[in-house]
Amino acid sequence: MNNPLNRKWLIKARPTGKVSESDFLFVDAPIPEPEEGEFLVKVMYLSATPVLRRHLRATDNGAGKVNTGDVMPGRGVGTVIKSRHKDFQAGDIIQGRFGWQEYAISSATGADMVHTIKQRRVPFSTGLGILGLNGFTAYLGMADVGQPKSGETVLVSGGAGGVGSKAGQIARLLGAGRIVGIAGSRKKCRIMIEDLGYDAAINYRQENVSTKLAEVCPEGIDVFFDNAGGVILDAALEHINKRARIVCCGRITDKTEKEQEEQRIKNYWRLGRQQARMEGFYVYDCLEDLPRAEEQLSKWLSEGKLNHSEDRLEGIEKMPEALMRVLKGQGEGKVVVRIDPEAA
Amino acid sequence: MNNPLNRKWLIKARPTGKVSESDFLFVDAPIPEPEEGEFLVKVMYLSATPVLRRHLRATDNGAGKVNTGDVMPGRGVGTVIKSRHKDFQAGDIIQGRFGWQEYAISSATGADMVHTIKQRRVPFSTGLGILGLNGFTAYLGMADVGQPKSGETVLVSGGAGGVGSKAGQIARLLGAGRIVGIAGSRKKCRIMIEDLGYDAAINYRQENVSTKLAEVCPEGIDVFFDNAGGVILDAALEHINKRARIVCCGRITDKTEKEQEEQRIKNYWRLGRQQARMEGFYVYDCLEDLPRAEEQLSKWLSEGKLNHSEDRLEGIEKMPEALMRVLKGQGEGKVVVRIDPEAA
Repeated sequence: MNNPLNRKWLIKARPTGKVSESDFLFVDAPIPEPEEGEFLVKVMYLSATPVLRRHLRATDNGAGKVNTGDVMPGRGVGTVIKSRHKDFQAGDIIQGRFGWQEYAISSATGADMVHTIKQRRVPFSTGLGILGLNGFTAYLGMADVGQPKSGETVLVSGGAGGVGSKAGQIARLLGAGRIVGIAGSRKKCRIMIEDLGYDAAINYRQENVSTKLAEVCPEGIDVFFDNAGGVILDAALEHINKRARIVCCGRITDKTEKEQEEQRIKNYWRLGRQQARMEGFYVYDCLEDLPRAEEQLSKWLSEGKLNHSEDRLEGIEKMPEALMRVLKGQGEGKVVVRIDPEAA
Repeated sequence: MNNPLNRKWLIKARPTGKVSESDFLFVDAPIPEPEEGEFLVKVMYLSATPVLRRHLRATDNGAGKVNTGDVMPGRGVGTVIKSRHKDFQAGDIIQGRFGWQEYAISSATGADMVHTIKQRRVPFSTGLGILGLNGFTAYLGMADVGQPKSGETVLVSGGAGGVGSKAGQIARLLGAGRIVGIAGSRKKCRIMIEDLGYDAAINYRQENVSTKLAEVCPEGIDVFFDNAGGVILDAALEHINKRARIVCCGRITDKTEKEQEEQRIKNYWRLGRQQARMEGFYVYDCLEDLPRAEEQLSKWLSEGKLNHSEDRLEGIEKMPEALMRVLKGQGEGKVVVRIDPEAA
């Protein structure tokens, strides 16, 4: 047998300060058997993303609490190889919360956000980035909530991030006239302009956001895709146009009381004056919309209209290293690890 | 002639502290003649409302700045008696910003918010309350933005106020299941329950709003019609349901920097988690929707389905007294002054 055992990473200790590779324990275990209502997945790819840091901390993200000794959580793409679940069958390619392991059992509960991949025009690893929750969030948040119209000005905070980098590009493809991104480093600002096609970039650590917005959004803001909140949201509110749409994204999890206090906003009254709208988007509540997002995104992707760079590592042994690369900001594009050496 | 002169109230001095009757000057003037593009209105009723206090202060409300020596602004209902404006003719009954005077010239500019009254089933004085901007704001904000569905829970802050008292009743007529009001006195809470048919009332000066909301909105909040902002909005955000709608109303004008600082909110991230929406409504931008609001409200009113009590004074001499009554909270219902003794 190629894989007589299921190799997996467990949480060895909760980091008190920074995450390190020694927080994880690499073990072998038998490949589990699915029970009634479950299926077994052979994992092809796993994702490394900053959100994983949260699982290592106190932490219930609405996706179930994770304990020391548990398999490290994380999303992956894999093939169903045995199924006793009525909605899945052997051969299905799916993405979901499989954890850092070669074989995973799932019962497709809500927290797992299992999604069957129907688009075969693009590599399966895209199911962890542009065709995964980040891409779906960007597409559905922008298309359904932001609704940019032809020629409008769209602002994206976290504009080089996992979701934001896609949201800005999607706005352009939906017809927006001017795309402006906000990020926290010169490198990210350069990426937004050179790689993602934004018209202007604001470095919020070095520039006064409100002053700069007046300059780079001379016709005001029609759509704001907000991954930040706080002072950046407050600055954007000063510049919204009549009937503007603000998409509230990414503030879904474990804000501390202190963070919430620091991120208070005062300019929400501008919504009333401008008859504008601030609306939340939460991809976990939109399972039925994912196929539509996937279809449009994979079409654009296969047409070469979406920038999607991948930083790929090989082998499950590399999972902690991959995560460290992400947390240190060293990833060049979406960081994925190929778990199954035969995966396409 | 019954009225050979146009009696009017001018702003004599800007109050530094509380408004008093000595801030106004009563004068006689010739009845003006309309020029091309203008019309002359004989005023039937004038409104006394707290918003007028703002005109006496620093103050540009988006409706044009008012100076000492000017006619005191205020909305009224009247009859067009001469017209050189293509959209108005003698005999039209209209509401608009005519000022505290017996005869007014208007050119129907945006700031005047002139609206022709087509509904004759109800007294014309209702054009200053339930069939005026307050009623239209309540109806359009609730029906178009709040969109309460059958059985839903609706919360209204400022629930006994000019707009809120109507918004709560309208929510019920639109099918909401539970109506809860927030106000700042025991008397207002009693009015909400006994006169306006609310299911529960919260006195924000005496009760912890968030704790009380958990108690009186056991199934959460689906629609929040917010006339307050600040801590009340923050408390409501803690209890919003999935896909809740928050109507931002009434924070359209002259907040000081200090007031804005005090009214910072932190729980807006709940919009993201609950896929909820916070949307502004500004009646001054919805002129084309007013006839629809008027038709529905006058229908309900003529059917006796809307509580609409009026506190009426007689004669233009009474305008300062009427305003003082409102500002002291002594008005029993909407305070109006009949200017034309022959008005129906």
